[in-house]
Amino acid sequence: MAAQSSAPEVSSGVLAARIARVREAMGQQGIEVVLLSVGADLPYLTGYTAMPLERLTMLVLPQQGDAVMVVPRLEAPRVTEHPGVFSLRPWNETEDPVAIVAELMGRPSLAAIGDRTWAQFLVELQRLRSSTRFERSNVVVGPVRMRKDQAEIDALRRASSAADRVARELHAGHIPLAGRTEAQVSADISARLIAEGHDKVNFAIVATGPNAASPHHEPGPRLIEDGDVVLCDFGGTMAGYCSDITRCVSLGEPSNQVAEAYAVLRAAQAAGVRSAVVGTSCEAVDAAARDVIVEAGYGEYFFHRTGHGIGLEEHEDPYIVSGNHRLLEAGHAFSIEPGIYLPGQFGMRLEDIVVATDAGPEALNHVDHSLVVIG
Amino acid sequence: MAAQSSAPEVSSGVLAARIARVREAMGQQGIEVVLLSVGADLPYLTGYTAMPLERLTMLVLPQQGDAVMVVPRLEAPRVTEHPGVFSLRPWNETEDPVAIVAELMGRPSLAAIGDRTWAQFLVELQRLRSSTRFERSNVVVGPVRMRKDQAEIDALRRASSAADRVARELHAGHIPLAGRTEAQVSADISARLIAEGHDKVNFAIVATGPNAASPHHEPGPRLIEDGDVVLCDFGGTMAGYCSDITRCVSLGEPSNQVAEAYAVLRAAQAAGVRSAVVGTSCEAVDAAARDVIVEAGYGEYFFHRTGHGIGLEEHEDPYIVSGNHRLLEAGHAFSIEPGIYLPGQFGMRLEDIVVATDAGPEALNHVDHSLVVIG
Repeated sequence: MAAQSSAPEVSSGVLAARIARVREAMGQQGIEVVLLSVGADLPYLTGYTAMPLERLTMLVLPQQGDAVMVVPRLEAPRVTEHPGVFSLRPWNETEDPVAIVAELMGRPSLAAIGDRTWAQFLVELQRLRSSTRFERSNVVVGPVRMRKDQAEIDALRRASSAADRVARELHAGHIPLAGRTEAQVSADISARLIAEGHDKVNFAIVATGPNAASPHHEPGPRLIEDGDVVLCDFGGTMAGYCSDITRCVSLGEPSNQVAEAYAVLRAAQAAGVRSAVVGTSCEAVDAAARDVIVEAGYGEYFFHRTGHGIGLEEHEDPYIVSGNHRLLEAGHAFSIEPGIYLPGQFGMRLEDIVVATDAGPEALNHVDHSLVVIG
Repeated sequence: MAAQSSAPEVSSGVLAARIARVREAMGQQGIEVVLLSVGADLPYLTGYTAMPLERLTMLVLPQQGDAVMVVPRLEAPRVTEHPGVFSLRPWNETEDPVAIVAELMGRPSLAAIGDRTWAQFLVELQRLRSSTRFERSNVVVGPVRMRKDQAEIDALRRASSAADRVARELHAGHIPLAGRTEAQVSADISARLIAEGHDKVNFAIVATGPNAASPHHEPGPRLIEDGDVVLCDFGGTMAGYCSDITRCVSLGEPSNQVAEAYAVLRAAQAAGVRSAVVGTSCEAVDAAARDVIVEAGYGEYFFHRTGHGIGLEEHEDPYIVSGNHRLLEAGHAFSIEPGIYLPGQFGMRLEDIVVATDAGPEALNHVDHSLVVIG
């Protein structure tokens, strides 16, 4: 038996409007049916988050006709029904849910399947529907989900504000660093994310000194000492929407080398944010931040993309990366987080969540961007 | 940026032996390559748990030739290498990992993909390998994973013992119930699971009075009161292996109706355990427990399967369910958890983890099976 995470409360009207936009995209692309299971597309369109279980939950959303959610009978009592949006088809323990989905979807030539659906279900469906070609649901749901409405932006803003409050405690020296391990500081930050209103913590990276040169360093037993740059990258989920912020602090005055690199990083991050204007391509935003770092001679030390979309998921479209020609639209929300990582020496990253709006890029994080000196 | 869960430490020799058994199964079934990403198959064969990320991690395991793990360069430092077992192919942010996997896998006619791999990656792979038919990895890895070795059974036993200690605290009245909400008791049980050595809590269902008639009830604001049957179903992960136990207690003397139903439930659960002899089919074990409940006239109130396999995952093969003709083998580990649910009145379930051995079924939980009366 297993437990459930919470989806944000959304009205039937909002869900119906989202589904209408997805159906419009389906019509344009010739996708006759979309099948959604675990992942954020399902709660986005139905308000219900599927359990990550071997017992299949799947929304069958045809381009025309009624949407039906196939759900294990044991889970059916959890589903908040939205009459007119979708109906329920609970299945019993001895039924085959994949056969039920196949029956409901008919025999389309082109279908789309939820990005994070377990492959086992796609394999089993393909056995029953060998003439159907499957696309990613992302091609029709992604563009809709990317354009956040005002309520979603407000939810992102509240989550970012909560993360900001934790970052301010870090800057104010209220989170003890010297003599503690990375793991202890990570636990402290996690507790504060919850105390500030997050429902769950998604990550709390604390990487110090040379450890920070690995961008996904696991907080460990290293004791934080004077002279360290302490990289803190943390976020959680609050009322369904995610926060994600990175700030670095210096324990004692930074060396000239660190101060110089940080000045470059800060200029790069600001350039990335400034460039995030509606109509600009994602790869141009990546380049705007990257160029500053490359021109300062640190190019080889910034080896990851500049950012990722954020919303119901920690990482979602649009990705701010070379090769992504997508143009920013009003309502796109994403991180801008360049970094500079000198192997064996130090690592630093600076990250805000930004929303593209018709009035220009709006950062949702407002904490001091400088390398604050502690102690 | 995101965080990582822990896999149990396993030696290169054990990993190599497991891979050899999987390759033998591949040979028998004509599966030329197995592709593993998120899910328990990957840590079972490599010791590494893939991050559930849009950045693909995938082991390419050919029936003959060297295994290669394709991994985001950012994550590569986390991988403990096992030379001779697999090599690493880190990919950079601007590379296409699916194209790398396609190249490594060649053009097999039959491949198997990890059950929980995100469908988006299978869709993208199928675009590049349209002549390859895909099976579930479960058909080759499942039978190997199901037969737990002694170290795995010991790990399951330690996790079950930790869960037992929490159940004993419940029976001893050390977990306050009267006047508290289900959610409070659930949080209390969760904290005790961690205190007893679990690395994480997977679920802590507390369902009371009429709420317990829904088997997957979400612990809520209902205040526990005298006369309630309190159903507690909880488990977590400890050194990589899962626990899962259900016990019910009665707040005050149970009614005759409750006592009678519980006597039936207890007899059914014991019959299920007794029947779990090597060579018996999974559906026969389900029937052994179910028949007791049906014969006592409660058949319509037991509407879920009798159990599920357990190991690295909370739910895995073998499922103890009607229609599953699989025969139990030594080392199979699974729950036996019948229930009786009377709508609007009460619900009860009784669950132990059991291992099939050549010496007969061995229950890993040893807590009193009676309906203990509290207060």
